[in-house]
Amino acid sequence: MPQGEGKPTPVALPSEVGVVNVGLGVLGESVRAQGAPAVDLDWRIPAGGRADLVAALTRLHGRWGSQVEQANREVVRRLEESVPVLVGVSRLAEAVPEADGRVLLHPGPPLAWADVCAPLRRSARAAAVAQGWAGSPEEAEALIGRGAVRLEPANHHATVVPMATVVGPLDPVFVVENRPGGNRSCAPLNQGPGEAPWLGVDSPEAIRRLIWLREVAGPALAEAIRSAGPIDLFALVAQGLQMGDDVHIRSQATTNLLLRALLPHLVTGRHPGMPELARFLSWNHLFFLNLAMAAAKATVDWAAQVEGSSVVVGMARNGTTFGVRLGGFEGWFTAPAPPVGNALYQPGYGPEDGAPDIGDSAVLELVGLGGAAAAASPAVASFLGGIAGAFEATATFGSICVARSGRFKLPFLDFQGSPVGVDARRVVELEVAPMIDTGILHAAEPQGQIGAGVARAPLDCFRQAVLALDRRLAAGEGRDRPPGP
Amino acid sequence: MPQGEGKPTPVALPSEVGVVNVGLGVLGESVRAQGAPAVDLDWRIPAGGRADLVAALTRLHGRWGSQVEQANREVVRRLEESVPVLVGVSRLAEAVPEADGRVLLHPGPPLAWADVCAPLRRSARAAAVAQGWAGSPEEAEALIGRGAVRLEPANHHATVVPMATVVGPLDPVFVVENRPGGNRSCAPLNQGPGEAPWLGVDSPEAIRRLIWLREVAGPALAEAIRSAGPIDLFALVAQGLQMGDDVHIRSQATTNLLLRALLPHLVTGRHPGMPELARFLSWNHLFFLNLAMAAAKATVDWAAQVEGSSVVVGMARNGTTFGVRLGGFEGWFTAPAPPVGNALYQPGYGPEDGAPDIGDSAVLELVGLGGAAAAASPAVASFLGGIAGAFEATATFGSICVARSGRFKLPFLDFQGSPVGVDARRVVELEVAPMIDTGILHAAEPQGQIGAGVARAPLDCFRQAVLALDRRLAAGEGRDRPPGP
Repeated sequence: MPQGEGKPTPVALPSEVGVVNVGLGVLGESVRAQGAPAVDLDWRIPAGGRADLVAALTRLHGRWGSQVEQANREVVRRLEESVPVLVGVSRLAEAVPEADGRVLLHPGPPLAWADVCAPLRRSARAAAVAQGWAGSPEEAEALIGRGAVRLEPANHHATVVPMATVVGPLDPVFVVENRPGGNRSCAPLNQGPGEAPWLGVDSPEAIRRLIWLREVAGPALAEAIRSAGPIDLFALVAQGLQMGDDVHIRSQATTNLLLRALLPHLVTGRHPGMPELARFLSWNHLFFLNLAMAAAKATVDWAAQVEGSSVVVGMARNGTTFGVRLGGFEGWFTAPAPPVGNALYQPGYGPEDGAPDIGDSAVLELVGLGGAAAAASPAVASFLGGIAGAFEATATFGSICVARSGRFKLPFLDFQGSPVGVDARRVVELEVAPMIDTGILHAAEPQGQIGAGVARAPLDCFRQAVLALDRRLAAGEGRDRPPGP
Repeated sequence: MPQGEGKPTPVALPSEVGVVNVGLGVLGESVRAQGAPAVDLDWRIPAGGRADLVAALTRLHGRWGSQVEQANREVVRRLEESVPVLVGVSRLAEAVPEADGRVLLHPGPPLAWADVCAPLRRSARAAAVAQGWAGSPEEAEALIGRGAVRLEPANHHATVVPMATVVGPLDPVFVVENRPGGNRSCAPLNQGPGEAPWLGVDSPEAIRRLIWLREVAGPALAEAIRSAGPIDLFALVAQGLQMGDDVHIRSQATTNLLLRALLPHLVTGRHPGMPELARFLSWNHLFFLNLAMAAAKATVDWAAQVEGSSVVVGMARNGTTFGVRLGGFEGWFTAPAPPVGNALYQPGYGPEDGAPDIGDSAVLELVGLGGAAAAASPAVASFLGGIAGAFEATATFGSICVARSGRFKLPFLDFQGSPVGVDARRVVELEVAPMIDTGILHAAEPQGQIGAGVARAPLDCFRQAVLALDRRLAAGEGRDRPPGP
């Protein structure tokens, strides 16, 4: 404190000092270096300091806070209480009547053909050939290009597709029923490893795979599942999490649990394709992926009926854009699809070869699986520098979630529940985006899957969502107010 | 230091003291309470202070130390380099010709019929009926009692049997080949849960299970395995450890991996029993247990050909005695079978109902599985107070082992190798006995499995082993010495 003639005298500091450092870590360190205790508080300017976001967040936590919390509780209840059950396999056009005709369902938000990335483009061409609409991928390209085939987001038809999968009316799909919500969802059969359209390949072999799935695997599997009766998918998922699966990039254990359940029905099945189906199932570690996605889709679609919630109920990528959805909003909040980071590549490939993040599988991260469940999976840990990295990833994911799952437990975190209910407010405030476990396709060539890693959802989607929710709640308040001044 | 007229003056202690406390923990605490640093050393009197053991250990580490270490290295090489491969299923009498005739193989060291515990007694009676030697368990009891059926340890015939399993000449057994060692091993098919003789039940239903395994499951499985070709068992085990199995009390993941591998061959199989076999496999979570045991047996039998090693190459219990073996010794070092501790019981049962530890499955603990791999398995952790308990159990097991597995990795310990090579010297010196993951049978009634937990091998077996090895090496030194004074 200045005193006398402007000459400051030294401030008498107390002999013992305890410091709470809210600044850079180095400031706390310098205090500690002088022998005084200092605690570092990990604090950053909320929402990067953007005034519009801070104002919206203030209202979403304050003025409309209790309204949002109430909606969030109902969303979480639905995320936790859905019971998605596999009830059968049928053709897409039967399960989703509005998908009859010359329509192809693709992953992620809507996009124009001109904007479709190379792997998805090849997959769509292969699908059009397999549907019998074109004699070659080149003919298919022309057909789609002139609008003779409609492209629609699978998500708009209660359907989800992994990676670059494209599904047409003749293709077999799993039908999943969520009785508590009274809703259904679909996903196509997983196409398996190697030369397959879902991995961005449109070779004759890849097209044959689609036809075989339709003509042989689909009907044979339909018979086995009919014989087995309804299968509670999340009951298998809960077990798979105890067995090293994140149930996104690794679903081997859950696939095996399904195979064990189907085994007697595959053995007694009369369809002549049973032996080929059995070989395919025995060879396809990711077979359960599509089923887990369908189960998650049935779950989030039920939750999406709740309005006014800040919990994300849709998340998907088409290889060009990344989109998220909030309940009660028609469209998507989108941003350019991010690259996949923390990746491991097959020999001869690197980051420069990878296509942007693609597929509807990010729906898994909304129900406590994938990146949320990183701590369950040594396979995911290998992308994150080891088990400690996986534990940290789950903790970070938890920081943007409003709840912990009562049914999906992480065994090596002493059976803590996996984080569920991604709150767009927290994502924006903390600038922590959901981590998504994912495969990587070649960006340009039909090389199929060249690696796997984790992608970060773009923050901008969540920022748009927060601003839109704020505007809608403000408008609603306006409507509820009695007329007059 | 006393000075002057016998009046002690105070000793001038240094103003700063650091203490290493080798005594009780409370001594270190009292130093720390006075503000001085103290490190507690966890030290106990070696071998409980028994002079004969301390003398033997001194020689086994000193005078004959390098000889023992050399033998141990070769034993560990064999424990690590065995490649046990499932090559088929055949009748016991074909696989083990000396087991033709009226002979029943039982778990653990040899024992007299009068000393056989109730669960094993019932299992032997059921086996004798199923073999067609008696019309009822009572007739069987009389037959065995008067010596008309020989009882022999399965272990003496390159065979291992879990829990109270008894196997006769007509029973189907897995045949496992360890090519690097040029040796083979066998184990019967796992009998499945519920009313089954291996769990100490001799009801008509349990006897029917044995006949069904022999007449239906065995031949059908033989066909499927023939079609599949040789199966590398430890390759499946290594994967199972990544999926929550300790591959002893939990082998569900490894069972599922086997089922996935067999699936195409079960579907294409022509044996009319295939559908029943498929239902049985789909229902039996422990099916792989017996295969893992056969693989471990092929491994330790190869290692047991090495003489002069202190690494244990056999460990088994017959429900009355517990025995361990060292390479080059004919017999077993035995002690009374211990109770199973840290147990979880089915409702209505408790420690007073449990039979003593039984079965040959403890061979798994000698190759890095079961208790050694506790850290891999949330299921085992549930007996040990949580994941930290499982991690500690593996660390404690490691303290008595001479190596870490290069092929069996513990994912949540950042892929550390599982401990292998139980050194009888360390067991005796530290008084730390191997922990064995195991099931619990009812001691008196035919209730089957009533719980699961962990058993501690009795230290006395290892003490006998250490003394015998010391004597043998001393005698060998005598022989090697030139004659004369």
